[in-house]
Amino acid sequence: MNTALQTLLSSIKAADPVWRQRAQERLDQLTKPLGSLGCLEEVAAQVVAIQQTLRPQIAGKSVYVFAADHGIVEEGVTAYPKEVTRQMVLNFLGGGAAINVIARKAEARVIVVDAGVDGDFTDHPGLVRRKVRRGTSNMLHAPAMTEEELVAAMQIGIDLAESASQQGVNLIAVGEMGIGNTTAASAITSALTGQAPEKVTGAGAGLEQAAVRHKARVIEAVLHKHGLSVPSVADALNVLRRVGGLEIAAMTGMILASAKLRMACVIDGFISTAAAAIAYSIQPQIRDYLFAGHQSQEPGHKILLDLLGRTPLLQLSLRLGEGTGAVLAFHLIEVAVNLFNEMATFTQAKISGAVPS
Amino acid sequence: MNTALQTLLSSIKAADPVWRQRAQERLDQLTKPLGSLGCLEEVAAQVVAIQQTLRPQIAGKSVYVFAADHGIVEEGVTAYPKEVTRQMVLNFLGGGAAINVIARKAEARVIVVDAGVDGDFTDHPGLVRRKVRRGTSNMLHAPAMTEEELVAAMQIGIDLAESASQQGVNLIAVGEMGIGNTTAASAITSALTGQAPEKVTGAGAGLEQAAVRHKARVIEAVLHKHGLSVPSVADALNVLRRVGGLEIAAMTGMILASAKLRMACVIDGFISTAAAAIAYSIQPQIRDYLFAGHQSQEPGHKILLDLLGRTPLLQLSLRLGEGTGAVLAFHLIEVAVNLFNEMATFTQAKISGAVPS
Repeated sequence: MNTALQTLLSSIKAADPVWRQRAQERLDQLTKPLGSLGCLEEVAAQVVAIQQTLRPQIAGKSVYVFAADHGIVEEGVTAYPKEVTRQMVLNFLGGGAAINVIARKAEARVIVVDAGVDGDFTDHPGLVRRKVRRGTSNMLHAPAMTEEELVAAMQIGIDLAESASQQGVNLIAVGEMGIGNTTAASAITSALTGQAPEKVTGAGAGLEQAAVRHKARVIEAVLHKHGLSVPSVADALNVLRRVGGLEIAAMTGMILASAKLRMACVIDGFISTAAAAIAYSIQPQIRDYLFAGHQSQEPGHKILLDLLGRTPLLQLSLRLGEGTGAVLAFHLIEVAVNLFNEMATFTQAKISGAVPS
Repeated sequence: MNTALQTLLSSIKAADPVWRQRAQERLDQLTKPLGSLGCLEEVAAQVVAIQQTLRPQIAGKSVYVFAADHGIVEEGVTAYPKEVTRQMVLNFLGGGAAINVIARKAEARVIVVDAGVDGDFTDHPGLVRRKVRRGTSNMLHAPAMTEEELVAAMQIGIDLAESASQQGVNLIAVGEMGIGNTTAASAITSALTGQAPEKVTGAGAGLEQAAVRHKARVIEAVLHKHGLSVPSVADALNVLRRVGGLEIAAMTGMILASAKLRMACVIDGFISTAAAAIAYSIQPQIRDYLFAGHQSQEPGHKILLDLLGRTPLLQLSLRLGEGTGAVLAFHLIEVAVNLFNEMATFTQAKISGAVPS
């Protein structure tokens, strides 16, 4: 681990639990039965603890869609051809993808990041051009990336988190696009948790059952090749470098940096949650800054959410990625903050308390 | 059943399934893996079928909060005193309740309806004064209301649905406030489904365990008193009159009328779902116009959602009522419509299709 990363990790502090307590005290004075706002009370208290104020505000919202390609697609593990990564980046920039529609409704800015797409782009105001290389190596035969490439990819997310924070953004979502990246996320999940590949491998963008079994066998071979068949939480960066992806590394960097900067960070589906699991493995304090936007159909997603101890805000059987589930959850986070700030107290509304039992 | 109601029931038609099919054809052309928007695809297709157009629009949004009191509170079945119904109505009118905050974020209008509060109100632009009587009779000793009162209460909801439709509203939520009304909802659930009172009785606004057991025993006695200890789906209006509530009857009327008027109607928690279950029992076609906003903590709620065959859009452990969970779900319905209307197709975005398997 390099010195810059060590400095970042040591600058991340757990959210002070006293703020959660103060938040709950106020929540209990609002005109509703105790605890009756359920998960929204948890969310409001977490935002209060992140922002360290009893007047929390969502000041600015952005979603980062990190795109990269994956050498492992050579093994026939995907339903769509590799070209779709680049084509979908152009669709994001054109405003026609699901994440664009959802972000417009959320009034969140979409920033598309080329972390390693195997294709070329011209300049575009919505595109951050930080290609580390043209896709990862085929991890069945070699580590997905070198040490230097890992550091460079993580730095993309760190830089973008810093820049977002400077612009007043305090609610971010991490999303991704990369044909082949559920294979990387499954390999990471298996390597971190010790769960068998067939338990953490799903249909991705739409594989048939036989193809899912093939994908699981490829992942098993990948793990064997890299000596990751037993859980390796202690060496999560090695897992990321060997069987991860450039967009996953960039998201890991962003998740770590957002915790340092005390920004609320919403993870999306299986792949961004794999990035969060890597970040959590090297710095568990990040969890206090993390919200799980939703739970997807990928079987490994729930395993990672359990590892992170985060309850998904939505369960809509999405399996799209791009940050879609995360940005959908912005609404619930903002409503939770509004309820906290705007509801009347029992005293203000002159409402009788509970009957003593 | 009176003639006006019979006319209403016969004017409700199932949504033509051909519109769902047309909607799915378009959804399958959008730039995402087939089916990857999960429940949001279902929602979009349902709105298309309701509105009978491939350019669905949410033109206007309102939430109706029906308030009434319950004679059964004399039996000690509630955590809060009866006065809270009236006090919370004033809180709704003052804008300080949870539903006000959630509706502001949703840009939905809040209409508070006095269907039978045991207290007085002066005129207020946000209040519809249609008090049928000052709360129901104590259903442990007598039917909650007379035939005439039932008709009058249902007519409130019917009239308000007509008025909403005339004003261009096409997405409504039904919510409620009434100390004691989970007891009525539990009695209705037991009477319609044959489930034992202890299976369908919960903490309401916050009863301790022993008090929940007492509440279940009261409900058992109520059902016995009215000869409702065996399922009585065929006689749902009798169930509603004997063990329901004035706000529940008004919601039943609104749910029926919204189906006739082809308005999307979102039910909220246990009590509004009990109203929907009554409506469904007398006219099953209403289901096509119904969305389940969320699943609450009340044990009877899931039983009713299963009866209705509706999947809740949110599961946030709310137990507040007022329409809160329903209006939170407006966001998902609007996003589903936006995705349907605004996403690019594969052809438009020049994106490669799936690899043939």
